[in-house]
Amino acid sequence: MTYRFAIAPSGFKGSLSARQAADAIAEGVRRAVPDARLDRIPVVDGGEGTAEALAVATGGTLVRRTATGPLGEPVRTHFAVLGGSGGGGSGGGDDVTAVVEMAAVAGLSLVPGDRRDPCATTTYGVGELIAAALDSGARRILVGCGDSGTSDGGAGALRALGARLLDADGRELPYGGGALARLDRIDARDLDPRLRTAELHVACNPFNVLCGRNGVARVFGPQKGAGPAQVELLARGLERWADVLTRDVGDVGDGQGAARLRYAPGTGASGGLGAGLAALGGTLLPRFDVLLGHLDLDARLGAADLVITAEGALDHQTARGKVPAEVARRAKALGKPVIALAGTLGEGAHTVRASGVDAYSGILPAPIGLAEALSRGEEYLADAAEHAVRMILLGTRLTPTPRRLAQPLSETKTPTGSPSPSGTRSPSGA
Amino acid sequence: MTYRFAIAPSGFKGSLSARQAADAIAEGVRRAVPDARLDRIPVVDGGEGTAEALAVATGGTLVRRTATGPLGEPVRTHFAVLGGSGGGGSGGGDDVTAVVEMAAVAGLSLVPGDRRDPCATTTYGVGELIAAALDSGARRILVGCGDSGTSDGGAGALRALGARLLDADGRELPYGGGALARLDRIDARDLDPRLRTAELHVACNPFNVLCGRNGVARVFGPQKGAGPAQVELLARGLERWADVLTRDVGDVGDGQGAARLRYAPGTGASGGLGAGLAALGGTLLPRFDVLLGHLDLDARLGAADLVITAEGALDHQTARGKVPAEVARRAKALGKPVIALAGTLGEGAHTVRASGVDAYSGILPAPIGLAEALSRGEEYLADAAEHAVRMILLGTRLTPTPRRLAQPLSETKTPTGSPSPSGTRSPSGA
Repeated sequence: MTYRFAIAPSGFKGSLSARQAADAIAEGVRRAVPDARLDRIPVVDGGEGTAEALAVATGGTLVRRTATGPLGEPVRTHFAVLGGSGGGGSGGGDDVTAVVEMAAVAGLSLVPGDRRDPCATTTYGVGELIAAALDSGARRILVGCGDSGTSDGGAGALRALGARLLDADGRELPYGGGALARLDRIDARDLDPRLRTAELHVACNPFNVLCGRNGVARVFGPQKGAGPAQVELLARGLERWADVLTRDVGDVGDGQGAARLRYAPGTGASGGLGAGLAALGGTLLPRFDVLLGHLDLDARLGAADLVITAEGALDHQTARGKVPAEVARRAKALGKPVIALAGTLGEGAHTVRASGVDAYSGILPAPIGLAEALSRGEEYLADAAEHAVRMILLGTRLTPTPRRLAQPLSETKTPTGSPSPSGTRSPSGA
Repeated sequence: MTYRFAIAPSGFKGSLSARQAADAIAEGVRRAVPDARLDRIPVVDGGEGTAEALAVATGGTLVRRTATGPLGEPVRTHFAVLGGSGGGGSGGGDDVTAVVEMAAVAGLSLVPGDRRDPCATTTYGVGELIAAALDSGARRILVGCGDSGTSDGGAGALRALGARLLDADGRELPYGGGALARLDRIDARDLDPRLRTAELHVACNPFNVLCGRNGVARVFGPQKGAGPAQVELLARGLERWADVLTRDVGDVGDGQGAARLRYAPGTGASGGLGAGLAALGGTLLPRFDVLLGHLDLDARLGAADLVITAEGALDHQTARGKVPAEVARRAKALGKPVIALAGTLGEGAHTVRASGVDAYSGILPAPIGLAEALSRGEEYLADAAEHAVRMILLGTRLTPTPRRLAQPLSETKTPTGSPSPSGTRSPSGA
C-alpha cells in the first residue's frame, strides 16, 4: 500500500513560483513517505508564470519577444503557444491557442520599487504581444491577468493595436492611467482588423471591477504605488475611460452602455485591462475555469488519495477566488481530503475550511522577519510539508476509544487548600 | 468513539507556564474534537512553577514566605508541602515532603536584565527555604533546580544553613560566585543539625556538571550575564569551592575527594547548587525520575490514545533531558503516539524523533518578531494544536492505495521544444 499525493500549490509571491513550491512540497512529502506517488501540479492564476506553466502542461512552446515594458522601456518577454496535450491545448491549423501573460510584459515585478507610479505605467506591451501572437498564426488568444503593475484600463494595449487616444485638442494622450481623465475621444479606425475574427479570452478574477467603491483604482492602486490623490485621479480617469470606450469602440448594443465596462465581473482585472479587452470583443472568463482545464486538474486531483495545496497567505481573501480555495473546492467535489500550507495564516484563515480545506498549517519554524521568511521559503515549505504529512500518517494509525471505555481521565486536581498566608502548617498535616 | 488526549507540555520560557501551555493546547484540541477526553498534565522540570505544580498534583499546599532573593533583597516566595494524592505524595506524620523550588527564590527571572551579574547573585534564600521547610515539620525535602540566576555553587544556601565561608584573613566572603576564588576555609560547626536526619533530594538535569570545559560557569554563565572574564573568575571559584567543600564539609570518604563534586552528574545544576547540596549529604537525582512520579505521569500517558507535548523550542538540546523528549520516551515505552509543538524549531529539531516524537510542528502563523511571539504564545499554541489535530483527524480517514493500483501519475510534462529564440513559428505547427 502507498499514498498518492496531488501537490497543487500556487506560487508564494516574492518567494517561490508555483513550480518551486510544488517541488519543495514534494521534497518534504518524500522525506515522510519515501515511496509516495507524487503528482506535482503548479497551479497558475493568470499572473506570473502562467504562460510558461501552460506551455509545459500542454507540451507547447514559449515564444520570446522584446516588447514595451510598463515604464515604456523595452523588456524581454514571451508568450506561449499551447500544444495538444493536457485538457484543452491547441489542435493544429486554425485551432492554435496562444497565451499572453500580462505580468510578463506589464507586471508589478517589472517596476522597481522606487519607480512605482500607476498613473504612468502602461499595458502597451500587452497589445504588442497580442499582435505578435496573431502574427504567429494563433486564432485564439488567452490573456492571463494578475500581478499587474499598471492601472491604465488597457489603454496602452488598445493603442498598440491601432487605436488613437485623443484629448480635446486632438493630441494623443501619454501612457498611463493618469492621463485618462483628459480623454476626449478614441479613433478606432486603424484597430488591427484581425481582432474581429480572432477569439480573445481573458482569464480574470471576477471579483475585480473597474469602477466604484470596490473599483480597481481604490482596491489595488495603493499597492501599485499610488497615493490618495493619485487614486482619485485614476478612479476618475477609469470612469471616463469606460464612457469613451463604450461610445467609440465597444458598445455591444445591449442597452447597458458604459455600466457594463464599469461594473461587470473582471473588468477591473489587471488595472482595468479586462475592460479594455472587453471593449475589443474579448470575453472575460473566471480565471480558473479557463486555466485549469489546460492543467487537467480535476482528473489529476481525482487520482490522488490526498491533495496538498499552498499559497503565501491564507486569510479571509482566500475564499474569494484564490488558488487554495479553488483547488479545495474541486478536490472536495471529488471527495478528496485536502490540506493547505501557508507562510502567513492571516485574519480569517479558518474560512478556508468552508471551501473544503480539511486542515492547514503555517510553515514558519521560528520568530523571524519577512525578508528572511521570503528568502528561505523553499526550505520552510519543504519542512512544513514533511511535518504535516507526518501528522497525517500518525492519524492513519490512531485508534479511537469506544465511548463506554472513555471515562473521564483523572484531570489534574485542584489544591485542597488555599496557600496559607501565615506560612504555618502543622507537621502532622495533610 | 472518541479520542483521549494526554496533554503534557513544558512551559514556554518567557511566555507560558506549563499549566497555561496545557490549557492553550486543550482549547485548540477541543475546537477540533469537541467531545475529546482531555487530561492536562503540566510537566515541570524542577524550574519555575515546580513547587506549585506538585502541590496541585498531590493535593498539597503552598507555604508563602519572605526570603532573600538573588540580589540580596527580600522577595516573596514559597515552598510546597505535598499532599497524599498523586504517585508519590507525602503521607502523614514523619513522612511529610516539602518541595523547595530554587527558581522561586534565586531564579533568573528575579534578576532584572540590567542587574544580571552571576558573580554577585546568591542562593542564600534557598537555604532559608530549606530551613523553613524543616521548621514546618518536613523530614524529606525535594529541591527543584533549573531557571537559576545564580552561579555561587550553593554557597549562599550553605551560609543560610549555618556555614561560615572565610577568606585567608578569617573574614566572611560576600555573596556570589565571584568571591569563591578567595575562599580559604569553611566553618561548618554551626550547620543546621536537622540536615543530618532529613532526607535531601535534589532534582537535577544530570547533564550539568560543576567544573571543566562543560562546567556550569562556561555553559550557563553567559546567559546569566557573565562576560568572558567573569566566566573565568566563576570557573576558578567553583574549582576552589569543590576543593574546600570536600575538605571541610562533605568528604564522604569514597576516595574520590573533590572530583565527585566537580564532575558528578547534576553537580552543576542551578549554578552549582547541586554540588553545595551534595556536600550537605543531598542526593542528586535525575529530575524527571523524582518529579514525574508525583504527577502519576506514566499511568496518565498510558490511558491516552494520543500524547501531545510542547516546549518553547525543539532542537538538538531537546534530547538531552528536556520535557518533550522525556514525555515522548515514556509514551513510546507505552506504545502511545506522540506529537510535539514548539515556538521555535531549531537546528537538530528532527532528532526528537529518535526520542519517540512521531510528528512535530511549529506554532507561528506569520513572520513576526520574538517579542510578539512571546506575548501571543497562548493564542498561537491553541491554534497550532487545533491545526495539528485536524491534520491527524484527516489521517484517520485516509485510505492508502494498493500498490498495484498506484501507477505513476502523469507527472507534469516537459516542454516539447526549447523556447524559440527567433520567435517564429509556422501557423500550421504542432
